[in-house]
Amino acid sequence: MAPQNDRMGEATSVTHSVNIPPDKHVRVLDGQGWVGLVQVMGDETTIVNAARVSFGKFTTRMTERDEVLLKYLVDERHTSPFEHVVFTFIVHCPLFVRSQWQRHRTWSYNEISRRYTEVDLDFYEPRHIRGQSENNRQASVDVLAGATQADAMRMIAQANRASRDAYETLLQMGVCREQARGVLSQNLMTTFWATVDLGNLLHFLSLRDHAGAQWEIRQYAQALKTLVQPLVPTVAKISGW
Amino acid sequence: MAPQNDRMGEATSVTHSVNIPPDKHVRVLDGQGWVGLVQVMGDETTIVNAARVSFGKFTTRMTERDEVLLKYLVDERHTSPFEHVVFTFIVHCPLFVRSQWQRHRTWSYNEISRRYTEVDLDFYEPRHIRGQSENNRQASVDVLAGATQADAMRMIAQANRASRDAYETLLQMGVCREQARGVLSQNLMTTFWATVDLGNLLHFLSLRDHAGAQWEIRQYAQALKTLVQPLVPTVAKISGW
Amino acid sequence: MAPQNDRMGEATSVTHSVNIPPDKHVRVLDGQGWVGLVQVMGDETTIVNAARVSFGKFTTRMTERDEVLLKYLVDERHTSPFEHVVFTFIVHCPLFVRSQWQRHRTWSYNEISRRYTEVDLDFYEPRHIRGQSENNRQASVDVLAGATQADAMRMIAQANRASRDAYETLLQMGVCREQARGVLSQNLMTTFWATVDLGNLLHFLSLRDHAGAQWEIRQYAQALKTLVQPLVPTVAKISGW
Amino acid sequence: MAPQNDRMGEATSVTHSVNIPPDKHVRVLDGQGWVGLVQVMGDETTIVNAARVSFGKFTTRMTERDEVLLKYLVDERHTSPFEHVVFTFIVHCPLFVRSQWQRHRTWSYNEISRRYTEVDLDFYEPRHIRGQSENNRQASVDVLAGATQADAMRMIAQANRASRDAYETLLQMGVCREQARGVLSQNLMTTFWATVDLGNLLHFLSLRDHAGAQWEIRQYAQALKTLVQPLVPTVAKISGW
Repeated sequence: MAPQNDRMGEATSVTHSVNIPPDKHVRVLDGQGWVGLVQVMGDETTIVNAARVSFGKFTTRMTERDEVLLKYLVDERHTSPFEHVVFTFIVHCPLFVRSQWQRHRTWSYNEISRRYTEVDLDFYEPRHIRGQSENNRQASVDVLAGATQADAMRMIAQANRASRDAYETLLQMGVCREQARGVLSQNLMTTFWATVDLGNLLHFLSLRDHAGAQWEIRQYAQALKTLVQPLVPTVAKISGW
Repeated sequence: MAPQNDRMGEATSVTHSVNIPPDKHVRVLDGQGWVGLVQVMGDETTIVNAARVSFGKFTTRMTERDEVLLKYLVDERHTSPFEHVVFTFIVHCPLFVRSQWQRHRTWSYNEISRRYTEVDLDFYEPRHIRGQSENNRQASVDVLAGATQADAMRMIAQANRASRDAYETLLQMGVCREQARGVLSQNLMTTFWATVDLGNLLHFLSLRDHAGAQWEIRQYAQALKTLVQPLVPTVAKISGW
Repeated sequence: MAPQNDRMGEATSVTHSVNIPPDKHVRVLDGQGWVGLVQVMGDETTIVNAARVSFGKFTTRMTERDEVLLKYLVDERHTSPFEHVVFTFIVHCPLFVRSQWQRHRTWSYNEISRRYTEVDLDFYEPRHIRGQSENNRQASVDVLAGATQADAMRMIAQANRASRDAYETLLQMGVCREQARGVLSQNLMTTFWATVDLGNLLHFLSLRDHAGAQWEIRQYAQALKTLVQPLVPTVAKISGW
Repeated sequence: MAPQNDRMGEATSVTHSVNIPPDKHVRVLDGQGWVGLVQVMGDETTIVNAARVSFGKFTTRMTERDEVLLKYLVDERHTSPFEHVVFTFIVHCPLFVRSQWQRHRTWSYNEISRRYTEVDLDFYEPRHIRGQSENNRQASVDVLAGATQADAMRMIAQANRASRDAYETLLQMGVCREQARGVLSQNLMTTFWATVDLGNLLHFLSLRDHAGAQWEIRQYAQALKTLVQPLVPTVAKISGW
């Protein structure tokens, strides 16, 4: 939850915008969103050492036997040793992706609050519009004609702008931010910190980089894989990515 | 997570709208939202029996000694015996209230999916507009003049309508629901099932029926108290509500 | 956590021992342990209604379409609708089974505290002794000769008795219960309340009624199935039990 | 959960005993137990940066304003920013301390399995025996005479030895480890990995370094404070330790 009064203050060193990612990041949604890696704890030897807690010494580099063990743990879903490897990401995404993401209750989140700030209002504008699937009520298909594409894109951009204009007019009238934000559309970009352990991250990825997931959140799941793969290459290989 | 294809089907007996609450409910936000109580497990004797697991027989009615025990458990934050009393609510609220609510990760949620259905689009229209606090960046104050009130209300209603119109036009163009919904504003009403145990409910209420909470979610927290008070009257009295 | 002082008191109506199960129970470990069902919230229509939150009316009896939906939810591991069905059990088991059980962190537990009471000390005495597997360090096999069986059983019973005698002598010397209990063996029977939702129960059962699980906890997992099957028969059938 | 077959293998580099702590550790229980710090993610600037997610730049050192913010977050129990600081400890403690500890379900655990190994059997022998409190059924007091102290200590040591002898005899008879361990007393030392975020660690410490907690686990809580204090000195100061 965001702090609720002005003792929050501002860090003396802060000058940048919330829309600027950390150094290590992957852009998604045609450059409009991104996932950054803030920090990581542990590596594959941590998993192996935790699984072999019976022994008193740390392995410091992976052996072939360790890889066999990792594969066994993944296959048998013994996920607890994976919980000692932890990542913090910063995510910049549309509100509707945020809502799908935060259904996952094993992550820790801290999000920009629109009760608190009115700066940096950006909106997602899809660059490729998908059609509605006829035989699957929750899915989309690639059937829109080029002309419709362009029309739909224009309409979305315009609706985003209208929502921002209404918001800013309300603020100028003196309306409190926490009520005014109700008119902001779900294409509004938001930014949040998200900390998760590797066990729960693998579960998230299996659901969100999946044919049934919406294209937009799937982009984020794939970006997570890109960031994480060099850190846990054996786990990535075992998991098939 | 909502099911992701059409095997969902429709219950043969279903005729009503998602906007209709169950029998036992409390209306909030000037009648625009509500919380309904679907089911409950346990009562105050459950708490007492769980705390006194050492003994082999169930108490079936509360005594004075039991009330002393309950007060002791609340005061010392021994919350585990409260976890055996469980409630399921249905909540109808604006998206921005939903997002605040679902930060609480100890509840179980199932929510209507706008990837799945386009019916029953309703929007929250505040009946009383609050001004922005000057000395507390996240708070609101009651300072708006009557004329501004009326103007702001009109503008919000209009912005809601515009967002719905854009959405429906996009659907008519063949755009998939999962992308089109991006233009829907955060005043959109949503409906979700929410199951929680009494221990975590008490924690939620202490944060959400609180001076620092936004007026809108506070209305819901108070409605939860109204629904729950007759079921756990001693706990309510001890908690001061 | 158990309350930490004497305000706990004793329920006026309590006369029975902690070793007596509730009416609805299944005995395990040759009658030495049991699992009782205390309370339940929801049934299979609850799952279906939560999954179909988009519609405003409750289904009150299962149809064929509902069964198809249930199967889809189980197959695709959409477990959230199962979280609105909740059970409370009372479990009477050896300490070593308790420790395996309570690794599952999604249950809520309240356990008899040996800091608090010294009554009802019972110990598990296995009626069939298993041999150590040679090629699987964590497994057991049925290879012990009858004579060895009898000897081992006698030795276990004797070790249990010795541990209880040491405990009682320490208490007579004035040693505090919380230190004296250190000499009690892990065959000591304990009793705890355990509340869990159906989603997490299914996960528990898949791990604990499994060839890799220890025979003793497997007995408990099978008893849970026996208690739960009549309440969610379609889910049981889909899950293959 | 510990892996369930022999593919676990043994790390080629492992030579040490499970009873040897990592470099950074604090001994407790008169040297019989210890807590080691394996790894840490984040520091106090992490908390501040997560709380101020609205801004796009990391603070890299704490200022006075940051300390005011930290105090505000602690006082108002806004614990979510603390969840991005994570620690992994290794704990060596008696089984009865382990059971109290693992009631805390927000930690991730991996523990040595007595189904898997029979090496390194050590037992806790209290060096100072406490008497039973008369007016508080769960508490202990310092009233035992010196002679009784010595007798009680001898008796505990002897009971520990008897439990180990019975265990080893059962193994020699061919009894499987998973059944034989039932005779091992709760003074048996165990070792586990434990990962927790700072928010949940603070909650643990408030309950376990507390007058109502058993002396033995309190020693561990204080050792955790000693290990963590240099890493989050402002939080420690605010929390009064």
